[in-house]
Amino acid sequence: MTAITELAAALAPGKILTDPDVTDSYARDRTFLEPGKPLAVVLAETRDDVVAVMRWATRHRVPVVPRGAGTGLAGGATSVDGGVVLALHKMTAIRELSPADEIAVVEPGVITADLDRAAREHGLMYAPDPSSYEISTIGGNLATNAGGLRCVKYGVTRDSALGLEVVLADGRVIDTGRRTVKGVTGYDLTGLFIGSEGTLGVITAATVRLRRAPASYPATIAAEFTSLRDAAAAVSAIIAAGCQPSLLEMLDRTTLEAVEAWRSIGLEPATKAMLIGQADSADADAVSARMVELCEANGASFVAASSSPEEAQELIWVRRMAYQAKEKLGKCLVEDVCVPRSALPFMIEKIEAIAARHDALIATVAHAGDGNLHPVFIFDHALPEPPPNVWAAADEVFREALAMGGTLTGEHGVGLLKRRWLALETGPVTEELHHGIKGLFDPLGILNPGKAI
Amino acid sequence: MTAITELAAALAPGKILTDPDVTDSYARDRTFLEPGKPLAVVLAETRDDVVAVMRWATRHRVPVVPRGAGTGLAGGATSVDGGVVLALHKMTAIRELSPADEIAVVEPGVITADLDRAAREHGLMYAPDPSSYEISTIGGNLATNAGGLRCVKYGVTRDSALGLEVVLADGRVIDTGRRTVKGVTGYDLTGLFIGSEGTLGVITAATVRLRRAPASYPATIAAEFTSLRDAAAAVSAIIAAGCQPSLLEMLDRTTLEAVEAWRSIGLEPATKAMLIGQADSADADAVSARMVELCEANGASFVAASSSPEEAQELIWVRRMAYQAKEKLGKCLVEDVCVPRSALPFMIEKIEAIAARHDALIATVAHAGDGNLHPVFIFDHALPEPPPNVWAAADEVFREALAMGGTLTGEHGVGLLKRRWLALETGPVTEELHHGIKGLFDPLGILNPGKAI
Ligand SMILES: Cc1cc2nc3c(=O)[nH]c(=O)nc-3n(C[C@H](O)[C@H](O)[C@H](O)COP(=O)(O)OP(=O)(O)OC[C@H]3O[C@@H](n4cnc5c(N)ncnc54)[C@H](O)[C@@H]3O)c2cc1C
Ligand SMILES: Cc1cc2nc3c(=O)[nH]c(=O)nc-3n(C[C@H](O)[C@H](O)[C@H](O)COP(=O)(O)OP(=O)(O)OC[C@H]3O[C@@H](n4cnc5c(N)ncnc54)[C@H](O)[C@@H]3O)c2cc1C
Repeated sequence: MTAITELAAALAPGKILTDPDVTDSYARDRTFLEPGKPLAVVLAETRDDVVAVMRWATRHRVPVVPRGAGTGLAGGATSVDGGVVLALHKMTAIRELSPADEIAVVEPGVITADLDRAAREHGLMYAPDPSSYEISTIGGNLATNAGGLRCVKYGVTRDSALGLEVVLADGRVIDTGRRTVKGVTGYDLTGLFIGSEGTLGVITAATVRLRRAPASYPATIAAEFTSLRDAAAAVSAIIAAGCQPSLLEMLDRTTLEAVEAWRSIGLEPATKAMLIGQADSADADAVSARMVELCEANGASFVAASSSPEEAQELIWVRRMAYQAKEKLGKCLVEDVCVPRSALPFMIEKIEAIAARHDALIATVAHAGDGNLHPVFIFDHALPEPPPNVWAAADEVFREALAMGGTLTGEHGVGLLKRRWLALETGPVTEELHHGIKGLFDPLGILNPGKAI
Repeated sequence: MTAITELAAALAPGKILTDPDVTDSYARDRTFLEPGKPLAVVLAETRDDVVAVMRWATRHRVPVVPRGAGTGLAGGATSVDGGVVLALHKMTAIRELSPADEIAVVEPGVITADLDRAAREHGLMYAPDPSSYEISTIGGNLATNAGGLRCVKYGVTRDSALGLEVVLADGRVIDTGRRTVKGVTGYDLTGLFIGSEGTLGVITAATVRLRRAPASYPATIAAEFTSLRDAAAAVSAIIAAGCQPSLLEMLDRTTLEAVEAWRSIGLEPATKAMLIGQADSADADAVSARMVELCEANGASFVAASSSPEEAQELIWVRRMAYQAKEKLGKCLVEDVCVPRSALPFMIEKIEAIAARHDALIATVAHAGDGNLHPVFIFDHALPEPPPNVWAAADEVFREALAMGGTLTGEHGVGLLKRRWLALETGPVTEELHHGIKGLFDPLGILNPGKAI
C-alpha cells in the first residue's frame, strides 16, 4: 500500500484530492510565489480527519501545510513538494455562542465576517476584521495573528482569543487556555500557537471573546490632503487628542489612482492622501467632529463626515477596494512593516523616496493609527516574480522600518516571503529559541516546513 | 574560592547579603509558606548584575529565585534551600516614557503605581492595577501576568506589554517583542515569559503600552445587597447591558465584617454583599446612573453614587482595605479561581456551602466583572499552615471552579501553593509541553525550581 492509499483509507471517500489540476488551486495563497507540487489535498471536515492526517504524516514523515482560505499575503499556505495540503475551510461549525459569557467556540474554517454576523444577532461583535474578513478564516487569522481595521481600538486576533484546540504534529490533541476571560495556569501556549503560521500545530477549534457591539454604525469621516505629511500629522493629532478612533486608515495617491483607474471616484489632481476615520464610542458624533477639526487644522483640502451607515460605507469603500484595484495594475508584493506611531510620517516619506530612487511603483495603505503600513510593490503581470529593482526597494523599506524601531510584519506573518529578512530583526539567541520550540512541538519537522522562522 | 566568594567578587560591594537574619526577610512572599534557607540574596541594580548572577549560577548549578517586592500570593518568590534570591526591587529606572508612541520602557523594580503616576503627568495611564499596586513591582506583575481592578475594561498585564528584555538561565540576554503596537515576527516569546513566574528567564526591562487617561476621576457606585445572589445578578445585568464598567468588584459579608472589626464602617446587620462599580467612559455619568438602576432592579438595599474623587475613593476604600483587614483576623490562604462570567452566582453559592460544610472561615472578594473570585481562607495565626478542614475546603473550591469550566488561578499564578492541583487542569500532554519548554530555556533547572509547572 502506498502512503497515499493508506491516507485515503483513513479518511471518508471524497476527502482526498490528488488530481494535479484540482490540487493546484489549493497550492497557493495570494502571493506570486510558485508553490511546490503537493502529493494530495485533504479536505478535513472534523478534528478526527486532522488527527488521521497528522498521525499518517508522522508515520511517513510527509510535510503538511495547513490551509485556511489561502488569502495569506506572506506565502504561509504555499504548498511544498511532496507534501499534503491540509485544507480546513470545511470545518465551519460555530459550536457555541454564549451571550452570557460573551464567548464563542468555533471551528477554524469559519469565515471571519460570518462569526461577526452571528455575534451581532446577540448585540455582540467579533472585533478582529482584516480587510479580507469576508474571505479569510478564523483559523488563518489565528495562525497569522491577523490585524484589521478595527484593531486600532480592539486589538489584534490574539486579543480576542481565549483558548485553542490544537492537533499536534504527532496527532495528539491538546486544549490550551480557557473559557474564562482571565487565567494564568501554566505557560501561555495559546499565545505561542497564535501567529505561529501552522508550524507548531493545527488549530481545530478556538474559544474567542466577543464584545458588545456599538449601539449604532460608527460615525465616519474621510479627509483628503494635498500632502502625505499633513495626513500623517492629522493622524498623530487624532491619537494625541485621545479620540480613540475605532478605525484610522490612510491611502496614498498611488493607491487612490489605482482605485480611480478601476472605478472612477473623481480623484482631484492635487490630492496626495486620504484619511478615513471612524468612532464607535458613546460620544461618537463628538469624536467625529473633533477628528474633522483636526484634519482641517492639519491642512485637509476636503473633509466629509457622516453617521448614516450607507454614506459611511461609501466613505470607507475606497479602503476596502484598494487591494483589488492594485491587483488590476499588476502582480503585487505586499509589505507589512509596522513602526512606532510617531515614526509614521518619516516612514511614509522614506517609502516615497525609495520608490523614486528605484523607479518602483509603490502604492501604500496604512492602518495609520497603529503605525502599520502596507507598501504594495506593483510589477508587471507577465513577470513570474518581482524584478531586481523591486526587490532592492523592498529590502530598503524593511531596513528603514527596522532602523526606526519597527518590525518586518505587523500582521501578515513571515511566511516564505519575509524569511530572508528575518535575521535582521531577530538576533541569533532568539533564533535558537525559535528553533528549539519548533523542535519541541514538531521534532520531525513536518509541519509547514520552511515557513515563519 | 567558594562559590559565594566568587559571586561576591563579580558584584560591586554591598550587593550581596549573606547574614541569615537579613536574608530571611527576602525569603518569603505574602503566603504562609515556610521558605528554604537561601545561600545569599543579591540586590541587583543593573542588568549586568543579573547577567553575572545567572552566569555564576549556571557555572555552579545554584538555584536562583527572582524576586520583585515579595507581595505574591502563591509562593512564587519563596526561596529554596541553598539557592540565591535575586532581588530586583532596586532596578527602578523608567528608562523612557514616550507620550507620542504611548509607551514606556521600565526596569522590573518600578512600583506599579509609580509608573501609573509618571504616565498621568502626560495625560496617560498604565492600566494594570492589582490591588497591591502601591507595593508590587512591574517585574512581579509581568512574571505573574497580574490582573487588577481595572482589568475588567483594560485587560491584564499581558495586554499592556509589548516587549521584554530577558536574561536567560545561562546569562545570555534577549529582547522579545517590540516597540510597535502590533507585530508578528517569530513566535510570541513575550507572551511565553509573561506569567512564567521566573521559571524561564529574569525580566530586566519591559516596553509597556500606556493608554489615554480618562478626563476625570471615574464615576463610582457602591451598592449593598441582602443576598449574594442578588449582587451576582446585578453583575450579570450590568455586563449584559453593555455598561463596560472600568471596575466591578464584589465583597461578601465575611469580608465586610473583617473590615468592620478593624475600622467601623457601620455595617448593616442584613447586608450580605457589597458591589462597587466604576465607569470612566465619555458617558460615565450615564453609565453610573444605569448601574445604580440595575442594582436597584436586582434588589439592592442601599446604593450610593458619586463622581467626586474624594467621595469615590471613600466608596472603594473598603475594597482596597479588604485584604489587610483579613490579615488581622488570622493567617490567610488566598485562592484565585476564575469562572466563566455566567457561573459567578453558582460559584459564590458553592463557596458558601463549602465553608459551612467544612466549618471554614472563607471571606470572598471578587473581580466580579471577570468572574475572578478570591475566596480567602482565614485560619489561626498560631498555626504554621492551614488545618486539614481548610485544605479540604480549598480542594473542593478548586474542583468546583474547574467543573464550571473555570481555572485554578485567574491572576496570582500557580507558584508553590497550587502545584498540587495543577494536574486537574492541565492534561498530561500539556504538562509534557510545559516541561519541554522549561527544559529548553533552563536545561539545568536552576531558575525558580519547583514553581509554576
Ligand atoms: C484583500 C486582502 C486584504 C487583507 N487584509 C488583511 C488585513 O487587514 N489584516 C491582516 O492581518 N491580513 C490581511 N490579509 C491577509 C490574510 O487575509 C490574513 O493573513 C488571513 O489571516 C489569512 O487567513 P486564511 O484563512 O486565508 O489563511 P491562509 O492564507 O490559508 O493561511 C495563512 C497561514 O495560516 C496557516 N493556517 C491556516 N489555517 C490554520 C489552522 N487552522 N491551523 C494552523 N495553521 C493554519 C497556514 O499554514 C498559513 O501559514 C489580507 C489579504 C487580502 C487578500
Ligand atoms: C494586598 C494584596 C493585594 C493583591 N491584589 C492583587 C490583584 O488584584 N491582582 C493580582 O494579580 N495580584 C494581586 N496580589 C498579588 C501580587 O501583588 C501580585 O502577584 C504581584 O504581581 C507580585 O509582584 P511582586 O513584585 O511582589 O512579585 P513577587 O511576589 O516578588 O514575585 C512574584 C513572582 O514573580 C517572579 N518574579 C518577580 N520579579 C521577576 C522578574 N523581574 N523576572 C522574572 N520573574 C520575576 C517571582 O519569582 C515570583 O514567581 C495582591 C497581593 C497583596 C498582598
